[in-house]
Amino acid sequence: MTFLADDIYRHLVSALDEQRVKIDPADCWAYGFDNSRHHSLPSCVVFPQSHEEIRSVVQICHASGTPLIARGRGTGTTGASVPVTGGVILALERMNRILRIDADNRYAVVEPGVTNQALQDAVAAKGFFWGPDPSSATVCTVGGNLACNAAGPRAVKYGTTRDNVLGLRAVTGDGIELRAGVFTTKGVIGYDLTRLLIGSEGTLAIITEATLKLTPLPEAKRTLRVIYTDIDAAAQAVSRIMAQPITPCALEFMDGRAIELIRQYGEIPLPEQAGALLMVEVDGPTTGLDAAAQTIAAAASGRGMLSLDIANDPSTVKALWQARKALSPCLRKAAPKKVNEDVVVPVSRMPELIAGLEALSRTHGILIVNFGHAGNGNIHVNLLYDPSNPAQAEAAPHCLDAVFSLVLKLEGTLSGEHGVGIDKRDFVNRELTPETLELMARIKRQFDPAGILNPQKSLPATPTGATATPYSSPTRRL
Amino acid sequence: MTFLADDIYRHLVSALDEQRVKIDPADCWAYGFDNSRHHSLPSCVVFPQSHEEIRSVVQICHASGTPLIARGRGTGTTGASVPVTGGVILALERMNRILRIDADNRYAVVEPGVTNQALQDAVAAKGFFWGPDPSSATVCTVGGNLACNAAGPRAVKYGTTRDNVLGLRAVTGDGIELRAGVFTTKGVIGYDLTRLLIGSEGTLAIITEATLKLTPLPEAKRTLRVIYTDIDAAAQAVSRIMAQPITPCALEFMDGRAIELIRQYGEIPLPEQAGALLMVEVDGPTTGLDAAAQTIAAAASGRGMLSLDIANDPSTVKALWQARKALSPCLRKAAPKKVNEDVVVPVSRMPELIAGLEALSRTHGILIVNFGHAGNGNIHVNLLYDPSNPAQAEAAPHCLDAVFSLVLKLEGTLSGEHGVGIDKRDFVNRELTPETLELMARIKRQFDPAGILNPQKSLPATPTGATATPYSSPTRRL
Repeated sequence: MTFLADDIYRHLVSALDEQRVKIDPADCWAYGFDNSRHHSLPSCVVFPQSHEEIRSVVQICHASGTPLIARGRGTGTTGASVPVTGGVILALERMNRILRIDADNRYAVVEPGVTNQALQDAVAAKGFFWGPDPSSATVCTVGGNLACNAAGPRAVKYGTTRDNVLGLRAVTGDGIELRAGVFTTKGVIGYDLTRLLIGSEGTLAIITEATLKLTPLPEAKRTLRVIYTDIDAAAQAVSRIMAQPITPCALEFMDGRAIELIRQYGEIPLPEQAGALLMVEVDGPTTGLDAAAQTIAAAASGRGMLSLDIANDPSTVKALWQARKALSPCLRKAAPKKVNEDVVVPVSRMPELIAGLEALSRTHGILIVNFGHAGNGNIHVNLLYDPSNPAQAEAAPHCLDAVFSLVLKLEGTLSGEHGVGIDKRDFVNRELTPETLELMARIKRQFDPAGILNPQKSLPATPTGATATPYSSPTRRL
Repeated sequence: MTFLADDIYRHLVSALDEQRVKIDPADCWAYGFDNSRHHSLPSCVVFPQSHEEIRSVVQICHASGTPLIARGRGTGTTGASVPVTGGVILALERMNRILRIDADNRYAVVEPGVTNQALQDAVAAKGFFWGPDPSSATVCTVGGNLACNAAGPRAVKYGTTRDNVLGLRAVTGDGIELRAGVFTTKGVIGYDLTRLLIGSEGTLAIITEATLKLTPLPEAKRTLRVIYTDIDAAAQAVSRIMAQPITPCALEFMDGRAIELIRQYGEIPLPEQAGALLMVEVDGPTTGLDAAAQTIAAAASGRGMLSLDIANDPSTVKALWQARKALSPCLRKAAPKKVNEDVVVPVSRMPELIAGLEALSRTHGILIVNFGHAGNGNIHVNLLYDPSNPAQAEAAPHCLDAVFSLVLKLEGTLSGEHGVGIDKRDFVNRELTPETLELMARIKRQFDPAGILNPQKSLPATPTGATATPYSSPTRRL
């Protein structure tokens, strides 16, 4: 924790009020961590309730060179909202209003602190949904979704956050109001600052309002569970499914290790020879939906398929999802402090990725379990290790390092939806060239000349920064 | 035309070869205009054939402060590729290779000079298409589509160029190689420079390679033509169609003036009371497609509908499209030098827009005919005036000015797909705030410190620039 100068505190109190400026460490403690388990105590937490209040806070921090870290509900998994340099946490949880739902024009205007679920509920009442569906949807905020370009299973059909936003209102690091984008689905005036801000993890500007693109709710859905002998067979099926014109609204997968774990901890019957499992959902108008499900089933069928089940009633749907839903609790039972990565490779390279991960698992003596969004090639690679086991604690960072090298060799990317934050910051320069990073750093300085917005996140310290040193961050790991 | 110094010429010849560096005004003339009818003679035209050659050309121009203007096939309508300051035209027409089509992973890697049609043909052979379908598709290049974020009728379902690109390779204004984006449909490492370059009209960097997202070709299509008594009835139908979950793959409209024109010049029978016409297409798997067309028909039906026809065989489809296809030739017959704008308003504001345009038409004594992509609220506003008629020539700029004011009052945007170029440059500061424009100008300087890339385009001269002075550009109007 760094000390907050008296005059800065007084300025913040006069911009908001005493109740909404917290400096007691007991009040601040809970705002120092996120779902990455990193922790660093902020000097202060403020709770703005309007665009104007945010602007005042940014101007105070800009003038005094005080770090300012925006925070939704702390569900991020990379430490992006952990105040590693101390400073002021901008807690956006009280800016949770839905300002406008325009059904005729298919958009909603919201404040950043509204939860994904509250938004979905409000727009569902008018027959719509918003594309992004991260697994933390009930808790996480739209602002957090924007900051890390969140996604979820539906992204395979409906895109990521970036594809579902029309415009933004924001405050740059020097306290200037920025308006980007439009209220329409087309617009080419000026540079696309909307998408530049999305995924920038609060390092360029604070988003104070977002205009979100809405999509009409589909009439109905069909669910398929398909089991294969091995990952190659499943990956080929994924390629076949994605090459035909009916795009599923979910195309999730689990590898053989995940299936073993479920068999072991979850007591769910799955075929002995099962080496990979796909969950596929297709949505659309009721008429034609059974035919669509049959088309998907035909594409899913081929060498190595062990079973294929289709459900269209709620209880069968639930039964089919049972294995997949059991996975997360099983993973927690097996390794409470596992590392959960979210790398991406082109769909056809998934078998090479999984084979490479098997080899790394053997080399480093760490069980690796994989599941994720197969339609996007976005794989959650879980390193199940026990930090209290010295050999595993020693091996884990090296293993993770090798995972990232493998992903890049396969023309993949280091993160599909979780972002960079602290955890991947030292790896970014393996994926992006020094010239590209240097340009990004210069862009950052245009938005935030004093460098107060979420310091030491997202971009590496220097474009040609030293080799990765995993977990070398100054935070305490809980 | 400005003079090209001998040493720059020699450097360019040594970077390429003499045959690919043209300085004879007779050779250069055709590279001085685009479909905006503006013309300005470049000092030189170069024809690079690789990323490396482009880099060399950029470095020569950067070192000497020579303007460099990228050009595809000159189909743009705003003068974006017209060299208003003279300088070197970077003609990308010989960089027209399709480098890779990866069907398994649904992407293609192309050079910028490939035409949209050549790409569509190549990927159709593998069962795919690329989303953007501008009406100039047979001629225009993918590089041009990227530069102005081109779209077309399909955008209502498949998005604009921005939504159909995974990554880019480019050269910045100081000759640095830039790699942005990924080979996958997800990726959140670093800032989104891909979408920042798309739509920037060659002012930030020269795109040398693009990785394009492909979509599987739909099995079949149904076409509907629906005629209404008035634009309000049609606009309400558009809102109803867009509020239900079957998104059409085209939702085009024509207003009453357009219908009159077709009746007058095209000799196509349309009902006497017709005040607006919608063309709607829906695509998808054959099974369920007739039901989908019926759902669209039900949504299209309501107050003011005069007729509704559905076609599913090629000759009926052709007959239904006949009126819409006749419109462009009729417009050219009625006013060969018409101004064709492409403003956008939220769908529900279309009736207000059309009513406002009717009033402007009366005030300024200029016939205004409207058609366009109703599903996106993207209206091609055609001012049919004769520049040789002094009263009309005097009135046209004022009328256009008032059109833009009206659009902004309705929460719209000044361009949906044509871009800014020269023609809308002086209007940009009506839509974007001075602070936002100042930030964009600073971003531009990070990419292009010497200001050589397509000078005097896209962004206004100064963020707080003087009031619009339409057609005040230094080019000659053909």
